[in-house]
Amino acid sequence: MSIHLELITHDPATSARRGQLHTPHGIVQTPVFMPVGTQATVKSLTWDDVWTTGSRLCLANTYHLFLRPGAEVVQALGGLHGFTSWPGAFLTDSGGFQVFSLEGLRKVDDDGVRFQSHHDGSYHQLTPERSILVQEQLGADIIMCFDDVAGWGVDDARLRQAMGRSLVWARRCRDAHVTDQALFGIVQGGFDRACREESAAGMVELDLPGYALGGLSVGEPKEVMLEVLSYGPALLPEGKPRYLMGVGWPEDIVAAVSAGVDMFDCVLPTRLGRTAAALTSTGRVNIRNARYERDESPLDADCDCTTCQRHSRAYIRHLVKANEILGARLLTYHNVSFYQRLMRDIRAALDAGTYGAWAAAFWARGVTWAGKVGASA
Amino acid sequence: MSIHLELITHDPATSARRGQLHTPHGIVQTPVFMPVGTQATVKSLTWDDVWTTGSRLCLANTYHLFLRPGAEVVQALGGLHGFTSWPGAFLTDSGGFQVFSLEGLRKVDDDGVRFQSHHDGSYHQLTPERSILVQEQLGADIIMCFDDVAGWGVDDARLRQAMGRSLVWARRCRDAHVTDQALFGIVQGGFDRACREESAAGMVELDLPGYALGGLSVGEPKEVMLEVLSYGPALLPEGKPRYLMGVGWPEDIVAAVSAGVDMFDCVLPTRLGRTAAALTSTGRVNIRNARYERDESPLDADCDCTTCQRHSRAYIRHLVKANEILGARLLTYHNVSFYQRLMRDIRAALDAGTYGAWAAAFWARGVTWAGKVGASA
Repeated sequence: MSIHLELITHDPATSARRGQLHTPHGIVQTPVFMPVGTQATVKSLTWDDVWTTGSRLCLANTYHLFLRPGAEVVQALGGLHGFTSWPGAFLTDSGGFQVFSLEGLRKVDDDGVRFQSHHDGSYHQLTPERSILVQEQLGADIIMCFDDVAGWGVDDARLRQAMGRSLVWARRCRDAHVTDQALFGIVQGGFDRACREESAAGMVELDLPGYALGGLSVGEPKEVMLEVLSYGPALLPEGKPRYLMGVGWPEDIVAAVSAGVDMFDCVLPTRLGRTAAALTSTGRVNIRNARYERDESPLDADCDCTTCQRHSRAYIRHLVKANEILGARLLTYHNVSFYQRLMRDIRAALDAGTYGAWAAAFWARGVTWAGKVGASA
Repeated sequence: MSIHLELITHDPATSARRGQLHTPHGIVQTPVFMPVGTQATVKSLTWDDVWTTGSRLCLANTYHLFLRPGAEVVQALGGLHGFTSWPGAFLTDSGGFQVFSLEGLRKVDDDGVRFQSHHDGSYHQLTPERSILVQEQLGADIIMCFDDVAGWGVDDARLRQAMGRSLVWARRCRDAHVTDQALFGIVQGGFDRACREESAAGMVELDLPGYALGGLSVGEPKEVMLEVLSYGPALLPEGKPRYLMGVGWPEDIVAAVSAGVDMFDCVLPTRLGRTAAALTSTGRVNIRNARYERDESPLDADCDCTTCQRHSRAYIRHLVKANEILGARLLTYHNVSFYQRLMRDIRAALDAGTYGAWAAAFWARGVTWAGKVGASA
């Protein structure tokens, strides 16, 4: 097994777990947050920057890299690690969620998905076998099964079709997979508990080295997502990593950790950084606001990141208003650091055996960060 | 005197000089290249990045900062040093050249320049007194006299008008100036030797702590600029810093150092970095070129900058083609490092007493970098 999760401790008060994920590119402390490097770059940051935020495992997108520069190019340059020089671990998604997002430009059938490139309209196909081949060429430490994502508000027939198809496709992925990269299964089933249970049972039967909860963060109300979290993680094997895909806001992460999730990825810290928003210990700051024009304080007085050690809100506001690259860069660096500090705090509380109290204090503060986000990833 | 130039050595074979410019923010080794931080940021770089390229003195633009965020805002935040956290020295231009560039949006008379903001068309005025006040608010170590720039291809009457007006304005600047920032004069006179001599004589009479050659790089052919360089530096006092404004390509800098110039600024390394171009020891590389798709070599095999130590041409090409911020950032960092390495090589040759031979070898290699440049600063 190329990766395995060593569970260190369980919180007595919640379902939270503390572990170490052993990968070919180092040990990753869990619960872990993965910054998203869609096009083999965490937007605006160097890989040295990413490392100094405390990140050790990053996500890259199969769909984007398949189209540009092409998976064979990345492979010829030593895979994602050789291509980027990132010394930590990588996970690639399967492309399933990305093509799902190409509403109107894709056609799904039992074989796979035909779609048009969002760059130039050219036609392409991804099947389970093709997704695995591409992910093998990209060479991440962890790769994902190609799945059919149903979305929010679909009827029962479509929900069951997507769930069943994802199971069949997962088996095809496993059969096509030839490298020693760790292939994770993705539990679908939307917001229907029976459907989720059937999906999880089928996936667990494949005995894969890790499992994700997919099909969340697709437009559903938050309480609907939290309901899936209340039973979803427990459907997955105790000794293997549990990954909640594409989630989420800091409060979502704390809720999911408490429910027994080990791994997270989300574009929020980077996307917010390019839309003038900073995440701080007291909530969100829109740095364009005129009130920060002469504000000499850092984005977050509690933050030890380089942005906060060096720069005032006033300077960052100026950069953002002047459309300077450095504005997005300083905000992104801070936001990713904010997420990694949250994860360190979570892990420290788990190590100390005080996570239950830590989470209770987190909820008692009543700070939330969620809200509408502007630009696309 | 808040700054002074300590001359260390003169090259026996050329007019090149090696010195140390003592400033309130450290000693700057000359000849020196100043990266341009138009809006109080060297585009795409952090100030830590700027420092590690070897830069110690940077330029910021009065015109841009006057409009946004406003000089009083910068002053309230501790001047440029407090605002940016840059630990090195700053020089601000006077705004003269910038408003000169606002063709059609400005009106010049003996009092000063009325112009419309390139942001919103709002009306503003800069006079010698106002420029000095604004530069005092910005708080750079070195500030520049407000001048009237004639441009290339103007008639003799306009040339003499701009030169004479710049002299009168320089006196008004000196009289208005109340801080201990070093105020440099700017010699105008276009491409007419007698006019340059008259300007220089008048400027030297003001006994300012440093002098610039202005009104070059305004569209003239290269040989015309080189002709001014053949006599221009010698018109300036031996013991004071000589600054060639807005120049230039690496070959221009070597020519000007040989002619006795100590200080340079230019947007080229940063602007080229945002238009997919790298400056290397063998010339210019357009990283978009398909030939680099799988090129594992660094931008410049002779370069020790972080970009070249970490990343391949193939990766940088991918980033640029994918419009990723990191592409511009890695190229900019390399290009500024390239300029600073050139300056270090020049200074090392001067220290060794071998600059004449070094320059001869530079010309014998026949590498040139000059060419058309795309986007605006």
